[in-house]
Amino acid sequence: MSKRAYNFCAGPAALPEAVLQRAQAELLDWHGKGLSVMEMSHRSDDYMAIAAKAEQDLRDLLGIPSDYKVLFLQGGASQQFAEIPLNLLPEDGVADYIDTGIWSQKSIEEASRYGRINVAASAKPYDYFAIPGQNDWQLSQDAAYLHYTPNETIGGLEFDWIPDVGEVPLVADMSSDILSRPIDVSKFGLIYAGAQKNIGPSGLVVTIVREDLLGRARSACPTMLNYKVAADNGSMYNTPATFSWYLSGLVFEWLKEQGGVAAMEQRNRAKKELLYGAIDSSGLYSNPIALNARSWMNVPFRLADERLDKPFLAGAEARSLLNLKGHRSVGGMRASIYNAVGLDAVEALVAYMAEFEKEHG
Amino acid sequence: MSKRAYNFCAGPAALPEAVLQRAQAELLDWHGKGLSVMEMSHRSDDYMAIAAKAEQDLRDLLGIPSDYKVLFLQGGASQQFAEIPLNLLPEDGVADYIDTGIWSQKSIEEASRYGRINVAASAKPYDYFAIPGQNDWQLSQDAAYLHYTPNETIGGLEFDWIPDVGEVPLVADMSSDILSRPIDVSKFGLIYAGAQKNIGPSGLVVTIVREDLLGRARSACPTMLNYKVAADNGSMYNTPATFSWYLSGLVFEWLKEQGGVAAMEQRNRAKKELLYGAIDSSGLYSNPIALNARSWMNVPFRLADERLDKPFLAGAEARSLLNLKGHRSVGGMRASIYNAVGLDAVEALVAYMAEFEKEHG
Repeated sequence: MSKRAYNFCAGPAALPEAVLQRAQAELLDWHGKGLSVMEMSHRSDDYMAIAAKAEQDLRDLLGIPSDYKVLFLQGGASQQFAEIPLNLLPEDGVADYIDTGIWSQKSIEEASRYGRINVAASAKPYDYFAIPGQNDWQLSQDAAYLHYTPNETIGGLEFDWIPDVGEVPLVADMSSDILSRPIDVSKFGLIYAGAQKNIGPSGLVVTIVREDLLGRARSACPTMLNYKVAADNGSMYNTPATFSWYLSGLVFEWLKEQGGVAAMEQRNRAKKELLYGAIDSSGLYSNPIALNARSWMNVPFRLADERLDKPFLAGAEARSLLNLKGHRSVGGMRASIYNAVGLDAVEALVAYMAEFEKEHG
Repeated sequence: MSKRAYNFCAGPAALPEAVLQRAQAELLDWHGKGLSVMEMSHRSDDYMAIAAKAEQDLRDLLGIPSDYKVLFLQGGASQQFAEIPLNLLPEDGVADYIDTGIWSQKSIEEASRYGRINVAASAKPYDYFAIPGQNDWQLSQDAAYLHYTPNETIGGLEFDWIPDVGEVPLVADMSSDILSRPIDVSKFGLIYAGAQKNIGPSGLVVTIVREDLLGRARSACPTMLNYKVAADNGSMYNTPATFSWYLSGLVFEWLKEQGGVAAMEQRNRAKKELLYGAIDSSGLYSNPIALNARSWMNVPFRLADERLDKPFLAGAEARSLLNLKGHRSVGGMRASIYNAVGLDAVEALVAYMAEFEKEHG
C-alpha cells in the first residue's frame, strides 16, 4: 500500500486513519456476525445498537441537553435550507438571516421561496472579510428564528461569538465547524451539519433540534422533510443511510478517545496558529480575513503572483499535499484542516510553503 | 474471520462478496492515490470518473435510452413518493395509482397530500394475493402519470407484465426488482429504486427519468427535490452520497462480469423455482400468492402452525441463515433472494426447510 496522503479537501474530507482501518477490518464481517454493517436491517438489534451508540457518543461529545432530539437525515445541508423554513417558518411569518458568504446566501435564497426573509446583516460592506457586530444587525420584531453560518467553508470566515437574540430560536449551519471545539448547545434552537467535513462520509446530515420546535411543519412539507416525523421514528421513518451513520459513530468514538472536543480545540488551535503564522510572516502568502473572524477549519490564502498558483499546486501534489486549490469563486489556495487532519499535515504544508517561497519568493 | 452468513434480509440486503472485498482493499487507498473514496472531493477528476462509470454501467445493464437521465439522489423511495407529484403532478391535475400492497399505499398516501389521486385499481378484493388485470382498471381521462409498484417487497406480489397506458407516463417503484431481469426502459416515464436491495448501500436512490418530463416542478418544490436541478447538475447540485454511489458502481461492474441482467434472470429464475417448489411440495410451508404474481425477489411463506415460527428461526440462525422473519404486518417468514443471494444460499435454505419439516412436520 502506498503512503496515505495529506488531504486538505474542503469536503468530502479526510477521515481519521484509525476509523478507516476499523471500518476496513469489519467490512465483510461485523463482530463475527458474518455480514457487513451495510447488509444489516436497520431495525435489527445489532444495527439499532450501533445507531444508538453513535447518538449517545455525539450527545456526550457536545453535551447535548436531554430536551434536544438528534436526527440522522439525508440530503445534506442544502436540503436543510428548505427543511428549516418548511418546519419553522409560518406562511405569514418572517425569519432573520445573516449573510456572511456563499453558504449563508444559498440558505437565504432557498428560504426566500417559502416566506419573508429579512437579511438582518451582511458582511458584504466588508467584502466578506469581517463579520458585522450584533449592534449593527437589523433584527425583525417577531422573527420565527435567526439563521446564521458560524463558519463559511468557502470564504474562511468564522464567528468567534454566539449571537444573542433572546427568545428567538437560533439556527446554525455548523457543517464545517461542528465538533471542532466546545459549544453551548443550549443557546441554539437548531444546529445542522452535513457530515462530510467533521463527522463522516457524505450522504448524511445531522440535525440537533430543541423539542419545542417540533410539530410546526407546514401542511405541504414532504413527510421525509418533517423533523417531527423523523424525531418520532428515531430517524428511521424509512431506511436511513446506515453505513454513513455507523461510520460517523466510529468517528465519535475516535473523538472521545482523543479527549473529546476540548482536546480537539487545543489541537485545532495549534494547527491554525501554525498555518496563519506561516502565512502572516511570509512575503508570498496572504489571508485577507479580519483576525477575529479567521476560520479555524478552512484557511484560504493567496500567492502574491497568481502565475505561481500552478507550480505551487504541482509541487504540493508531488509531496502528497492534496486538494489545496481554492474554491473557484475565491481563487488562490485553501487548506481545510478539520479534526482528522493532524498537526503533522499542517507542519508538512508549512514546510513546503517555506521551501516554495525560498525558490519563488 | 468467521464464515459469511446467508443473508435473506429484505433491505438493507446482502451485497456481492467480491464487491465488499474490493471496497475493503481500496478503503484506505483508492488506486494508490493515498486516500479513501470517502475522502475525495465529489468534483475531483478521480471521483467524477467513478461516478460517470457507474452511470454508464447502469445504462449498459438496463439499456437505458439516451433521452433518459439517470439521477443518483438521497432520501430513499419514501422521499420519491413526494418528489414524483411535486415534479409531475400539476396542482389541478390528477394521477392514477395502483394499490398492490403496503408500499404502493404509502406512495398513494404521500401523493394525496399534493393533489387528486385516483386509485385506478386495488388488489384488496384479492386480499393482496393477486393483481387485478388491466381490463378492470378505472383509469382517469387525463392522468399526469400512472404510478405502480412492480414488486411489493412486503407482500411478495410482483407484476409479470408492464401496464399499457398509451401516452400517459408510466412511473414505477422498482426498489426491490430493478436489475433482477431485463426490462424495456422505453416503456416508462420514470423508474426509481432505493439502492439497498439490488443496487448498493442505503442512503442512495436511483431515478431514471425521460427528459421531456423534466422542468415541470411546482414552484414550492424544494430545490433539492427538483429533478431538473439534479439532472442539470449531474446529481451534484450539492455533495451526493459519494461512497454509496461508488459502491453501487462496483455492484454494476460485478453484474456485468456475471453476464448482466439476462444472466441474473436465469439465476433468479432457478432460485425462485427452487424455493417456491420446496414450499408448494411441502405439507408444512405455504405461500398464498397467485402463481403468476409471485415475487422473484421476496418470498413470504408461513408455517402451518405459527408456534413453530420461533424454533424455525432459531434453527435457521444456528445454520447462519439470517433475517428470515417476515414483516410484522404479514407475519410468518420471508426470504429475500436478491441478485447478491446465490443459488447456494437458497439450496441451504431449502435443505434446512426439509430437515425442519421432517422433525416438526
